[in-house]
Order: sequence, then C-alpha cells, then structure tokens
Amino acid sequence: MTIFTRIDHVGIACRSLRSSIEFYQSTFGLEVAHLEVNEEQGVTEAMLSVGPSGSYVQLLEPLHEDSPVGKFLARRGEGVHHIGYAVEDISEAMAEIGGTGVRVLDSRPRHGSMGAAIAFLHPSDVGGVLTELVGRQATSSGEKRTSRDS
Amino acid sequence: MTIFTRIDHVGIACRSLRSSIEFYQSTFGLEVAHLEVNEEQGVTEAMLSVGPSGSYVQLLEPLHEDSPVGKFLARRGEGVHHIGYAVEDISEAMAEIGGTGVRVLDSRPRHGSMGAAIAFLHPSDVGGVLTELVGRQATSSGEKRTSRDS
Repeated sequence: MTIFTRIDHVGIACRSLRSSIEFYQSTFGLEVAHLEVNEEQGVTEAMLSVGPSGSYVQLLEPLHEDSPVGKFLARRGEGVHHIGYAVEDISEAMAEIGGTGVRVLDSRPRHGSMGAAIAFLHPSDVGGVLTELVGRQATSSGEKRTSRDS
Repeated sequence: MTIFTRIDHVGIACRSLRSSIEFYQSTFGLEVAHLEVNEEQGVTEAMLSVGPSGSYVQLLEPLHEDSPVGKFLARRGEGVHHIGYAVEDISEAMAEIGGTGVRVLDSRPRHGSMGAAIAFLHPSDVGGVLTELVGRQATSSGEKRTSRDS
C-alpha cells in the first residue's frame, strides 16, 4: 500500500525569512501561498507554491535560538531541515509506520502549516532524513480533523 | 515568471541502495520506477515514485568514496543531499537563473536520471541547498534534447 501520496513540501531552515522569500521569488518565480507563526514549533514560516500539484517550498526562520530550527542552524547552517510527505489519513499512517518500528515522534497529530495535521518521524530511523507526515484536511472522507487546537 | 514547475525529486544519500530501497518500499509503500548507474556523477541511483504528480525520492549510493556523494556521506552522514526542481526549458532556466548572479555549476546541461537534462546550482548561492534543475524530455516544443551523450 502506498502511504505517501505526494511530496508535500521541502522544509528549509533560513536565518531571515524575509530575504529568503525574496530570493525564491525573484530567482525562481515562486509565490508565497501562506505565512504563519507556529509558536509550538518555534518558527515563522512561509509556504511557497511549486507548480499546480500541491507541493511547496517551506521556509523556516526560528523564533528563538533554542528551538529545533534554531539549533539546526547553529549546528549545520542554512539548508534542508526536513521533508514533508502527504498522506491520506494521518492517524492511519502514524499507526502503520509506527508498526514497522520507525519511531513516530508525536503521539497524536499536531498542528502544521495551513491547517494540516502533522507528525514527525525520527530521522535516525529514516536514513538521516527528518520526515514529516502531512494530512491536509481537504481530502476525501472520514473523520479527518485539523489539530489546530492540539 | 515561474521557473520551477514541480518538485521533481528529493535526492537522498545512502550507504546501501539495496537496503534503503527496501526500507522505503516496506515502510512507505514507494515503488522503484527506475534504477541507473551514473558514472559521471559517481552514483548508483534509484527513483521511487511518490504519487501521480511526477515527483520522486531519489536514493543515491556512491560508486566510490571520493565522489561528491561519497564525500557528503563521510562529512555529514546519510540524509538529504539535494533538491531537484522541474523546469520547462533547462537552457532557458540556466540562463535566467545565472543572470541573477546565482552560480550555475554546469556550463551546459548534462545527463540526469531517466534521460533528464540537468544542471546544478551552487548551494552557497541558494541558502545552503544544493539545487538541481531538471528538464525532462517529455515536455512541450523546441529543441529539447537529453544530454545522455554529453
């Protein structure tokens, strides 16, 4: 069974959201679809649409140095922080993947960009890639909810 | 103008292509669309389809330690090596992006996965992200060629 249905986004850590947005706009023609502060994750972030297929470049600027993205920048500098893959059903995906032995870092879905319900997988269990599962609310049937209030 | 039309692939450096393929298949349900040895780039690589939109996870195992991916593994370990974005016309994209001051590492398109014509951008000019332009042959009009023989 296919669990990943799309590359939802590439999460890129940057020091200045403003200048990174300007760079991606002026150099590659990408436009901002969404801007958001996520206090829980300690970031200000921008989602830039890449083509019509629902994929994004996600630019992440830390709100403070001891946030995960702040620590990443201090350790490795600017660059790719994580990869987000779309899944049909976030809870099902968490259960299936967790069942294979990969550590799911969230016990239940939490709030991601643009109202998505998300969960992270431990990078050591995914070949060094911090991997995010992204369940967007605008899909099919069922009890899907965003976890904006989680 | 939009230059990037799709996230073509996420390029992931791994030590064992065989075990990484098996992991992505069994854990996330991704299937191998293509396997290839690219002597020029010093890698054996697998393209795994992610959904119907033409995006891939590209797994890269170095052919030898002093190849770019071999050095990356020695320095940083397994993880995301580069991001590939689809462009309509590779030569136009190289010229436009080069014109903004970003260093294009290839003077002309070279051979990438699945017959694509590709070029890399200097990561220091793209916020720490090694960025690949991917022109697939199955697009629109014009003189598009793959650079398989370059």
